[in-house]
Amino acid sequence: MVEKRIPISVKEAVTRVMQFEKEGKKEEVSIYECNGRFLCEDIVANHDVPSFDRSAYDGFAIRSVDLKGASKENPITLSVIDEIGAGQVCQKRIGEYEAVRIMTGAMLPSDCDAVVMFEVVIEGSENTQPYIIIDHEVETGTNLSFQGEDVKKGKTLVEKGTKINPGIMALLATFGYAKVPVAKKPIVGIFATGTELLEVDEPLEKGKIRNSNAYMVMAQIERAGATPVYFGKLQDVFTESYEAMKEKLESVDVLITTGGVSVGDYDLLPAIYRKLGAEVLFNKVAMRPGSVTTVAHLDGKLLYGLSGNPSACYVGFEIFTKPIIRRYLFSSKPHLQSASAILGEDFLTANAFTRFFRSTVSWKEDGLLHTVPSGVDKSNIVTSLAFANALTILPSNSTGYQKGERVNVLLLEEEAGSEWPWN
Amino acid sequence: MVEKRIPISVKEAVTRVMQFEKEGKKEEVSIYECNGRFLCEDIVANHDVPSFDRSAYDGFAIRSVDLKGASKENPITLSVIDEIGAGQVCQKRIGEYEAVRIMTGAMLPSDCDAVVMFEVVIEGSENTQPYIIIDHEVETGTNLSFQGEDVKKGKTLVEKGTKINPGIMALLATFGYAKVPVAKKPIVGIFATGTELLEVDEPLEKGKIRNSNAYMVMAQIERAGATPVYFGKLQDVFTESYEAMKEKLESVDVLITTGGVSVGDYDLLPAIYRKLGAEVLFNKVAMRPGSVTTVAHLDGKLLYGLSGNPSACYVGFEIFTKPIIRRYLFSSKPHLQSASAILGEDFLTANAFTRFFRSTVSWKEDGLLHTVPSGVDKSNIVTSLAFANALTILPSNSTGYQKGERVNVLLLEEEAGSEWPWN
Repeated sequence: MVEKRIPISVKEAVTRVMQFEKEGKKEEVSIYECNGRFLCEDIVANHDVPSFDRSAYDGFAIRSVDLKGASKENPITLSVIDEIGAGQVCQKRIGEYEAVRIMTGAMLPSDCDAVVMFEVVIEGSENTQPYIIIDHEVETGTNLSFQGEDVKKGKTLVEKGTKINPGIMALLATFGYAKVPVAKKPIVGIFATGTELLEVDEPLEKGKIRNSNAYMVMAQIERAGATPVYFGKLQDVFTESYEAMKEKLESVDVLITTGGVSVGDYDLLPAIYRKLGAEVLFNKVAMRPGSVTTVAHLDGKLLYGLSGNPSACYVGFEIFTKPIIRRYLFSSKPHLQSASAILGEDFLTANAFTRFFRSTVSWKEDGLLHTVPSGVDKSNIVTSLAFANALTILPSNSTGYQKGERVNVLLLEEEAGSEWPWN
Repeated sequence: MVEKRIPISVKEAVTRVMQFEKEGKKEEVSIYECNGRFLCEDIVANHDVPSFDRSAYDGFAIRSVDLKGASKENPITLSVIDEIGAGQVCQKRIGEYEAVRIMTGAMLPSDCDAVVMFEVVIEGSENTQPYIIIDHEVETGTNLSFQGEDVKKGKTLVEKGTKINPGIMALLATFGYAKVPVAKKPIVGIFATGTELLEVDEPLEKGKIRNSNAYMVMAQIERAGATPVYFGKLQDVFTESYEAMKEKLESVDVLITTGGVSVGDYDLLPAIYRKLGAEVLFNKVAMRPGSVTTVAHLDGKLLYGLSGNPSACYVGFEIFTKPIIRRYLFSSKPHLQSASAILGEDFLTANAFTRFFRSTVSWKEDGLLHTVPSGVDKSNIVTSLAFANALTILPSNSTGYQKGERVNVLLLEEEAGSEWPWN
């Protein structure tokens, strides 16, 4: 009566999914709208930074040659013949024993080769002609920022696939990217399945629960960088469900369903995948929660049958769907970022399958990352997800794990990502 | 000639700013639009979860009393009189030696007290009447999820000020929040000052640089959770700048300017603050970069004079502006999250002021957080910001710091935050 499914390892399951990774489409958006988007091209410096030699301080631009031999006993006087603020350019020639008052960031006059700061000169004026007195020698190059000192033209600064953050915004502005080339956001469709589901605005009924998975997955899709489209609920009725999925599949890059992938009497997804002609990559993974996660492939598109169980659904998305979205977004590190952490609680039961428990990691005084389960760790426990910022990986073993052991975690909020955390 | 300013400590400067912290306004948004927003009220469970006793597996709901004495030698047969999927409710009374076929998540019929899984029964049928044979006793409560097991009605689940993430979305949906109470985003206005600035779409000119600070700060404001409004550039002309700031101040919750706060000839902000009648909280902080950061207060609004220097501007925002925004958003941990890390490079020069260097933190095999400067650490070096996910704090000392030392870092991307990292 019950279909027998053969579980495969998480690593093998991820490998099967990643066969279908591909980079997405490109578009240009205004710099005002690019924050948080993913670059689809490398940013290359199109000019030196600074693009000219400039003063690093407020002071006076001088010719160091004029100050040879200057000392407390032999101070040297320079005539101040011009003054320039940042953005202004000195139009005069600077001759022997002449100087220019200059502000931070202003371009060094071409006849000068150093700057002395306000604080180290004596200022005066004679017949409205200002002068300065300097009592020390000054090396050429003093207090300057040199052309190209920060960045040389032609240097690759940020690689494609990187999420745009405030620092990258500064680079984009510096190099004149009024339009920014970013990855188009893939469209990820969602159906929730299950006759037991009420919508969020429906009153609670006996035997029913509100649909929480669709809203959760929408937020996960956004966090991954894609655009979610919620197509509503499917009743556990084959023909309607099949027709709805077939129709909507056209309009999305990835299609997610929640629920209906187990082996219960009303779990229709396996039959729907068959009728669609989709190739099922796997329907059982040696992991908890999420062992019934099913992924299928049809005409270049992936169909994710995530569990109806909130935690299993959550984990299935992060492990199998997020990296596909990140590859669409040109990332070379599409998987969740992995890290080593100290287990904060005993887990003394044997695991036949790899466990991913929803965890809160934190940094203690000892400088180590510590991981504790966020809420009770049963796969139906929705509250454990609210404070999860990591998944702790407990590989299958017969003895469980003890508090204080070193374990691997996958960080849910870290943008850097991993190339392949499944060693 | 040069104004003498007295630097105050970072801790004292933050303390002065935080005198003016206040919680912002509230609004309701659709659950479809609340991801990433900040809750302005605690989320309290308005019903038990589960809201009824339900089956944790696909199987048969039974009365454990019927199976007393069942064994391999003495298997007991139950008549299967109904079947229910999740969302369905059994309408029949279940009598002696009767059972109901039940799917995961379905409500337990009131006459039953346990579930046996498909896998452990033998199914058969006689004259179309299905039956099951069970060869073991079953304890009451087996394979059930009990009402209130996950959450009891009335429990506070998430505190106000928390950023809505996928797990919180699931909770909101579960408890029927079609509309979600969130903090209104404060409006943060930005002026860039400086005659040297070109807009992002202008070609490079001699002596000028493109305005990168405004775009960077806009992204920082978004990351903090507020709405940026860019008012454009101000030339270094007093009356125009004063009028523009006075006018725009009306329309914002916080006003930021970049540049113009130093003691150069064209640094107009001190005079503008005076003419506005704003109380200057400080104009010199014992920190690098960002020592000229100036914060003023006028009629309940804060005016931030951030440095024109990109790195100084960046650090000034994160230390002084972000916590004010997060308090508007009802957060009780508004400051950057602090952590302990291992310094990845020598910093052997003496610091008179506390240094905040833009850093990339990462987790190595040893489970420790490691911090290295992201790019060259000079305050004008814009590229160092692109890869910064932390600020490393090096308190002033006379000997510098050695590679391998334990230092504190502030994590730029972590949402949890700190109550007060300035001990």
